Parts: sequence; C-alpha cells; structure tokens
Amino acid sequence: MENKLKIGIIGLGTVGQGVVKVLSKLSDIEIVGAAVKNTSKKRDVEVPYITSDAYEIANNPEVDVLVEVAGGCGVLDVLKTAIKNKKHIVTANKELLARHGSELFDLARENNVVILYEAAVAGGIPIILPIKTSLKANNFTSVAGILNGTTNYILTKMEEDNLSYEDCLKKAQELGYAETDPTGDVEGYDAMYKIAILANIVFNKRIVVDKIFREGITKITALDMQIADEMGYKIKLIAQAKKYNKKQDDNMLDIRVHPMLVSKTNSISDIKNATNAVLLNGFPVDRVMFAGPGAGEFPTASSVVGDILSIKAEISSNNILPMTVCYHKEYANQVSIDETVNCYYLRITASNHPGTIGKIGTLCGNFGINLSFIIQRGINSDGHATIIVLTEECYEKSVNSMIAELESTGEIKIENKIRVM
Amino acid sequence: MENKLKIGIIGLGTVGQGVVKVLSKLSDIEIVGAAVKNTSKKRDVEVPYITSDAYEIANNPEVDVLVEVAGGCGVLDVLKTAIKNKKHIVTANKELLARHGSELFDLARENNVVILYEAAVAGGIPIILPIKTSLKANNFTSVAGILNGTTNYILTKMEEDNLSYEDCLKKAQELGYAETDPTGDVEGYDAMYKIAILANIVFNKRIVVDKIFREGITKITALDMQIADEMGYKIKLIAQAKKYNKKQDDNMLDIRVHPMLVSKTNSISDIKNATNAVLLNGFPVDRVMFAGPGAGEFPTASSVVGDILSIKAEISSNNILPMTVCYHKEYANQVSIDETVNCYYLRITASNHPGTIGKIGTLCGNFGINLSFIIQRGINSDGHATIIVLTEECYEKSVNSMIAELESTGEIKIENKIRVM
Repeated sequence: MENKLKIGIIGLGTVGQGVVKVLSKLSDIEIVGAAVKNTSKKRDVEVPYITSDAYEIANNPEVDVLVEVAGGCGVLDVLKTAIKNKKHIVTANKELLARHGSELFDLARENNVVILYEAAVAGGIPIILPIKTSLKANNFTSVAGILNGTTNYILTKMEEDNLSYEDCLKKAQELGYAETDPTGDVEGYDAMYKIAILANIVFNKRIVVDKIFREGITKITALDMQIADEMGYKIKLIAQAKKYNKKQDDNMLDIRVHPMLVSKTNSISDIKNATNAVLLNGFPVDRVMFAGPGAGEFPTASSVVGDILSIKAEISSNNILPMTVCYHKEYANQVSIDETVNCYYLRITASNHPGTIGKIGTLCGNFGINLSFIIQRGINSDGHATIIVLTEECYEKSVNSMIAELESTGEIKIENKIRVM
Repeated sequence: MENKLKIGIIGLGTVGQGVVKVLSKLSDIEIVGAAVKNTSKKRDVEVPYITSDAYEIANNPEVDVLVEVAGGCGVLDVLKTAIKNKKHIVTANKELLARHGSELFDLARENNVVILYEAAVAGGIPIILPIKTSLKANNFTSVAGILNGTTNYILTKMEEDNLSYEDCLKKAQELGYAETDPTGDVEGYDAMYKIAILANIVFNKRIVVDKIFREGITKITALDMQIADEMGYKIKLIAQAKKYNKKQDDNMLDIRVHPMLVSKTNSISDIKNATNAVLLNGFPVDRVMFAGPGAGEFPTASSVVGDILSIKAEISSNNILPMTVCYHKEYANQVSIDETVNCYYLRITASNHPGTIGKIGTLCGNFGINLSFIIQRGINSDGHATIIVLTEECYEKSVNSMIAELESTGEIKIENKIRVM
C-alpha cells in the first residue's frame, strides 16, 4: 500500500473546513489533527485530533505537511518551528508571506522543504505555479489585477445599482462578503499583500510591503461611478506591479494599489462581483489573463489541496519541486508614487465664477499637464459647478502640486482624484 | 559548471524559429541541431547543425530533449524513436497528440521520459500544467473554450464590420491568420484536436477524436451575426467537453466543436480576434477562465520553452514530473450529437402564406420542442419571409426530425441552425 501523506492544519475557519471536506474524499491523504483558537466551537467537520496549541501540530512527528489557513502574522513562529522540523508548508496567508516571505523561504531552503501558497493570491485561480513553470521563459513587464473580491463586489454593486459606497458596504457585510471591520479589504491592505507576493515571483526581487503605495475605495462616490460610466469607464480597485520605464533600470519597480478608471474596452473591466483576475504582460507570451473566484471556502480549498497534491506527487523525489522556490536575495528599487506617471480623472467643484475653466486650464499648462478632456456638468443646487478633467500622462508630483495651487484660492476644490488605467 | 540541457528541434517554421530565438537568451540550454524539410531555405535563425533527416535528431545521443514543432502525424515514428532513445519530448503537435497521444504516453512511461505539450492547446496560455497541478483536486464537469484563433478572428471581423464570411476569410489570409487552404481551421479540425487533448486530462479518459462532433463556421452569414447581435448574442466557434447529465454515468462525455450563439453577458463572448480562452467548471474551484494569445511565433515559444525549463528543473531527479503523465487507460463513452440536449437558433425562410408561424409552432409542439422566441422579420424582396426561432432545451434528434418534416412541405426552408450556449 502506498504511504499516506499526513497533514496537520492550523485554523479551521471557512477555508480550513473547506480543506477538510475536500481532503476527506482523497484516500491517499490523511489529516492528523488541527489547531484552532477555540476548541469548543461547533464546526461542520471533524478531525481526529484538535488542540488550541499550534506548536503541537508544528512539533508533531507524524505530520508531513503543515497547512496554515489561520491568517495573520501571529503564526510566523509556528511555521518556522514546522519548517525546522522538516515539514513542508502549504499556506493561504498573504500577509505573512508579504511581510516575512523571504525569511521563511530562506529557512525552507536550509531545511530542504517547500512552501507552496497558490491559495494566498486570487483564491481558486492557478497563478503562482503557472508563473513559476509554464510562463518561466518570460521577461515580464507588468502584473496587474483585481485581487480583492470584497471591494470588487462593492464597486460592482455601486455601478449596477447606482448606490453609495456606504450602502454597498452594508450589503456586502450582510452577505458575508465583507467583515464587520472592513478595513483590510476596503483600504487595500489585502490587495497590497497579494501584489507584493506576485511582484516577488514575477520580477524575482524581494519586495518591501510597506513601501507599496496603497489607497482604498472609500472615497469613490456614486457620482464618480456615473461620470466614469458616461465617459466609457468603470472604476476598479487595481493592484499592479510594473517595470518603471522612465529610467533604464530593470530593478526599479512601480508597485501600488488604488482605484482606477478602467476603459470598458479593457477585458479587466468585465470582471464583476467577487471574481478576481490577474493580467500578465511580458515577452514572449505577450498578454495572458486568469480569472475566477478570488475567495470562498471551496475555491480556496481547491488551491490548498492542489498544493498538497503537488507535494504528494513529488515527495518521493529528493529534488522536491525545485521550480517553486524563491531564492532571490536582491531587493527591488521601489519607486515612490510621486515619481510615477499616470493619466488622472479629477472631479472639481468651483464657485460659479466666469473664467474657472480657463483658470484650471492655465494652471495645468503651467505645471506641464496636458488635458485630454474637460467638461462642466451644469450648476449644483448650492450654486457650485462640477467640472470633470481628464489629463494626459503626467507625474503624480506635478498633478499634486497643481491641485495644491488650485485649492489655495479657496474657490476651487478637488473632490476626487482617480488614476486612469 | 552546471550541465547544459541539450535540445534537438524538429521543424523550423514560425514557432520553431521563435523557440530558437527565446532559447538563445538562456545560458543553461544548448541547441544541438534541427531537422527541417528544406535545408536550403533562408531562415531568421541559425542552429549549429541542420539536417533534412528527423531521425538524425531522434537518434543523436547528445540530445536530451526533442522539441517537435513540425506538426502533423507524419512525425509519429520519429517521436517514438526519440522516446525509445530516452529523450524527453516537448511538442506543440495537437493532431498527433489527439490521434496518437495514448500510444506515445504509454511508450514514454515505459522509457521513463515525459511528454510535455503546453503549446499544443491555446498557444501561450498555461492550461495543461495548471489542470494537472494546481487544479488537480477538482472534479470537473466541463471544459469549454475558444481554441482556434483563425476562426475567432474571422467571426470578430464579421461581427464588427458586418462583412461576409468569405470577405473576412480573405482578410485573414492576407494578414497571415489563415492558411491558403483554411480547412483545418474553418471546418473545426484544429479546435477538435485541442478539445480532445483537454478532455483527456480534464476527465482522465482516453478520447477517440473521430467520434467528436465537428461543424465549422463556413455557413455563418452576416445576417446570422446581425440577428444574433440584436438578440443579445455573439456567434463563436466553441469547443467543449462536458459530463453528459441525462444518465448518471460519469464516463459519458459530450464532446464537440461547433458555432454557438453566446450571450453577451457570458465573459467568453468578449474574447476577440485571435485570442483564445479556456473555461473550466468543477468542484471545488467553481469556474476559472484563462485567456491569451492562441498562436503566434512568440506566445507559442513561451509555452514550449516553459516546458523545456520544467524538464531542466526536474531532470536531476529520478522522479521526473510525476504529475504530468497520462496513465489512464479507460476510454470515455462519447455520446453522439443526436443524444445531446441544446437550445437552438433557427433561421427560416418561408413563402409568405398566412399560418406559417402557426405551422412552425404546431410542429415544434408535436416534437416536444418548446419555443422561447419566434419573430417574423418582414418580407424579403423575393416575397419570402424570414422567421427566427429560439427553442428551449431539446434533443438534437428531435430538432432534426422537426426540421425534416418542416422542410418536407417544400414551402419552408431552414437556412441555418445554430446551437445556443
């Protein structure tokens, strides 16, 4: 009889329970036990052994593979213990990998074990392994995507039902798509961890997560949605990492997470609700897109169990999964948002004085900013005019300086500034 | 110094030259030589050694990996020779794999070598390896896609420019998207080979390629395109393989290639020009989509070189790529098109007699076919009426019997029958 691969699990929340359910159908995998915060909590699934001490799992000599689906950086030391005990790791923990990945990969290499994490980015979509295997011949110029299902659900609802951010957040919370404290999703932290992980393997550089520019979706209004729609755009929370082309330095990366106006002709604009999508550009492949469920009990379990099966298939070899390691030691030179170049959507309110549009146009010219579109949308009930500006490509620092000067008069206010994809 | 992986190439056409160009940038891979039909032909690339005898490459003891990008079934014996010589195979040859894959995989297993073929389906899109690794935990219910770039280019042009099939084919030929004899693409053979390969790995069954129902795009008219558009559909050549649900038999597969009306709300309808897309449905992942370039020198080279690098990474192990083999021996029970259930679009012309719509409705009722939509689109210049029918789900054999009886009167003609996705 074939030896069964023995699994220990840290965390039996939604994803952990999905993993147990999917593994229960596989005869060649055995769950040894699980560690949870609250051992007395009612759960849908049963495991042979349950403990509140995660180290019991990390130190259990029976366990071949430690599956970590608890989340957060609190489990760092548990995983290090497991690695030192020569256990392979399968994890869905984006924050841990984004913040401590390099340390963990180094330790795994020393101990000749692997860390697989297909579930950490874009849930059920296979993206990590394809980048490291089938697409390995490529020199990528960018990776971009919709990596957070909660915010994409909220933005889709805002757009389809013409509702406010607050109303859609509430709806998402009622449906379980958003947490009671939604900060991690709506402020872009979750997408930031994921783009850090993707940038790491796409560009083979270490990434400092706290240097990634991050802006959430809380300032997007129903009016922005409506205006974007009229101009042929949707608004999406885009996470992206790309080579910074202004200088011929291959190590300079422009990595960020923020809302963007995305043209309706761009296929990423069609990604709706909690679906995620990842777009890769590079040579020789040109452009490929992966789309699918970004979260959820079963889609995430698909990736976790896929990783377990990959380890199972290769464990008899001494040369386990050589393609999946992250050996690179060099840090990327991450450019600040000020140095990036973008097109901008500006929603401006101004006192209804003659010459306001002229003033905006002149000031943009002074800062070297070309306008591609400017329109005044009538007069509001309070006597103010709403003016919409789309700029051509310009430096973030230029547009910010221009805005500061425009607002210094007291008569003009920038209600929102959204970058254009 | 690390040992270089040594490559022999069969075929130096567009893809072969792309492979040589991409490999030339990799210091740890060495091209030994290539076999071509015409050794005196001018080419963009140089290789150390060129021969018109493919067996010289297959028998060359220097070669570790044979890369076959010649196409067609004529190379079967060459590949068998190489496998017996313990060479790993990387191939983009969909027809060969669809017709002789089982034989080749068996032989590869006996000789402890692998056959990788990421480039054989959907060009640059990683799909074979993700199905076999990251998505391995899934029980799939269907795989469907746009797998032929030439026909998708023609259909996109027909739709966007309101042109005839013939005009768009000519344009595709001028641009090099279609061959002088376009049969392989426009009659669906190319897509048929690809769906056979996908069905094989998605359902772990051997597939008999000649049992796959196949219908090309040559009968699609500009009028069909226009009517479909008005009703909220696009027309796409869809290749699909799915579990046949009418009987509870997991081995029964419904595999086919034919044009379909695809709702504009389905993301596959957005796949334009020569782009390919593959959709997978299953548990636990739910639904994932992969999209990207389906052909071309460099995208195809991306997949070929990705496979070469996968072999390079694992070759020091005795347990090479255990996940990538196709060991299944069982043949699928492939249901005939007559037994399948579909919704249908029928474009009908009829003499302008009173009661024609009534006759169609009555006859459909007699055959147990429910209509979801029926409309008469005015009277043509020749005095005939065009009637459009959309049916609810019904058996193919029922709709064909109904059509035969409808046409037997001599007054009514079915101009086109297109299945609805």
